Amino acid sequence: MRAARYYGKEDIRIEQIDEAPCGEGQVRIAPAFVGICGTDLHEYLGGPTFAPTSPHPVTGDTIPITFGHEFSGVVKEIGKGVKGFQVGQNVAVQPTIYCRTCQACTRGVENACYRGGFIGLSGGGGGLSDSVVVPVDTLFPLPSNVSLDIGALVEPLSVAWHAISAAPITPDSTVLVLGGGPIGLAVVQCLSALKTKKIIVSEVSSSRQAFAGQFGAHHVLNPKTYDLVAMSKELSGADGPDVVFDCAGVPASIATATQAVRVRGTIVNVAIWEKAIPFQPNNLVFREAIYKAVLGYQRKDFQAVIDHIANGTLKPERMITSKIKLEDLVEKGFLPLINNKEKHVKILVDLSAK
Amino acid sequence: MRAARYYGKEDIRIEQIDEAPCGEGQVRIAPAFVGICGTDLHEYLGGPTFAPTSPHPVTGDTIPITFGHEFSGVVKEIGKGVKGFQVGQNVAVQPTIYCRTCQACTRGVENACYRGGFIGLSGGGGGLSDSVVVPVDTLFPLPSNVSLDIGALVEPLSVAWHAISAAPITPDSTVLVLGGGPIGLAVVQCLSALKTKKIIVSEVSSSRQAFAGQFGAHHVLNPKTYDLVAMSKELSGADGPDVVFDCAGVPASIATATQAVRVRGTIVNVAIWEKAIPFQPNNLVFREAIYKAVLGYQRKDFQAVIDHIANGTLKPERMITSKIKLEDLVEKGFLPLINNKEKHVKILVDLSAK
Repeated sequence: MRAARYYGKEDIRIEQIDEAPCGEGQVRIAPAFVGICGTDLHEYLGGPTFAPTSPHPVTGDTIPITFGHEFSGVVKEIGKGVKGFQVGQNVAVQPTIYCRTCQACTRGVENACYRGGFIGLSGGGGGLSDSVVVPVDTLFPLPSNVSLDIGALVEPLSVAWHAISAAPITPDSTVLVLGGGPIGLAVVQCLSALKTKKIIVSEVSSSRQAFAGQFGAHHVLNPKTYDLVAMSKELSGADGPDVVFDCAGVPASIATATQAVRVRGTIVNVAIWEKAIPFQPNNLVFREAIYKAVLGYQRKDFQAVIDHIANGTLKPERMITSKIKLEDLVEKGFLPLINNKEKHVKILVDLSAK
Repeated sequence: MRAARYYGKEDIRIEQIDEAPCGEGQVRIAPAFVGICGTDLHEYLGGPTFAPTSPHPVTGDTIPITFGHEFSGVVKEIGKGVKGFQVGQNVAVQPTIYCRTCQACTRGVENACYRGGFIGLSGGGGGLSDSVVVPVDTLFPLPSNVSLDIGALVEPLSVAWHAISAAPITPDSTVLVLGGGPIGLAVVQCLSALKTKKIIVSEVSSSRQAFAGQFGAHHVLNPKTYDLVAMSKELSGADGPDVVFDCAGVPASIATATQAVRVRGTIVNVAIWEKAIPFQPNNLVFREAIYKAVLGYQRKDFQAVIDHIANGTLKPERMITSKIKLEDLVEKGFLPLINNKEKHVKILVDLSAK
């Protein structure tokens, strides 16, 4: 079968490899659509970071590993002991890999498993292939009104759903979202699905500003034009937004977040950071503010996203800005997302396209 | 009357000034005992920072201002309209100054008032004088079994009580306290009053280590000897302490706190920071940890501390390491706390000592 395999920095190869056997408690999926994620780009440009260079503690795999962790697909084979799924069924895959024994797992926070990882980043196969074998508890049936391409968006939307679930969002909340990249736009959509009263987005790129408006932002500000701290306070009609989501992960975003948020407000960090940055805790002290960090998602987030897509409160179609075939992965997938990222939200690889 | 007045950096003068009039809703107090606080030392060494150099928005005062914000005293005069207090009554004073109109105040977070301050730091008189006039709602009657010197400890203990109230402390909690200065030791006492199962303290100074043990710490570690992250995880018998209090406020303490805390644990910052420091948010991300900042105290914290002193669960007597007279404020108060701080927890000025 075909598989897009990551060997290291700027080295992804479309190769022919053997299919994995489908064991007990496992299901074979034929991936249908696979999103390319910012983490994939980071691995490509500067990795391996997540991709294991020594045997991964759960998967046992080492690079080269198959890429692709945002995917939908069709059930092709049912392993021994698996119930509740049928060959031919459409599914989304929650790619969380976790050890089930560490203190994070036993506390029910398997998304922060100390030995964890992701299918498609940490070994265990990946979505960018013609066949992948996954544990049955990674699967979510897609309702008949949720198509397979939309099914590939469930993963990034679940990151956002997990993030907004960490904050005390109510319909009356004023929220500032820093960064209008794929995750920031997913946060905007999830907030909009909850009918959040005021969603303010900060984004430099004009095309991403337009996306933010389309996805439900009430105010979209260019931080190069506006004093974001002052403007978000003014727009909130109070001493600041109730909640700030940092989806940018740069020194300016954490400084803005900690200065903009209201007294006893909440900052949720959704970003992964490249390195330590300057931070003045007094900004939180003088507001008695809370800074929370979130990581990935849990099963309940995947289910909530699928439910909201199915009932029409989440309409993420516009996230898909391009569909490509597997053989064009780097040239029409990675490189446009690196060199022309403002034009794209999500590029999907269509495994059926030849 | 005598008053210790702060003119600026390294300039505190004991002067004769007029008493303030006691107006409507106010009470005149003869201060009995006054603690010297770390903030006083910061103002002395590097200020004015809190002390107003232009008219304070609430008090209207500008330096020179009278120092002293940790104090007990005796009611000397009752202003018009004041009920529930009698001349001769012993009280502790909550020195919070707040505007009552800003969004922090109207949200019930007057301790973070945008125009706020402290009696004894922001004008409005201070405890280091023979007479101070304060609003009646700053007063807390001292029960008959709480002496006036102990009454001067209510303020620093309330800082600690407010901090521990921000964390999900249960009798089963494992807690790491970073820093064994006066506030760290107050946090230890408050945790001990709640019968917290495991209290681990990190402190370099051997005399402060001894204080920490006396005040209820179960383990006292020198961070120069131990790998504090590894050791606190081992002592917690888990993936880390449930809660970490940063009472040190240095780059090493925030790094330790964010690496030691367990998955979904809570860090409470009790420190005030001199400047921005390096911070790697990923340390929180990979644990889904919460970083909370607290500021000062509220009325309920003062009342809780007084109640716990009165019922014997807080026994702070040993915090008092010296009592001095007002005229010796700098020489026997500020200078020992600056040059020989490890030997002291709290130096009280006894206004009755001549």
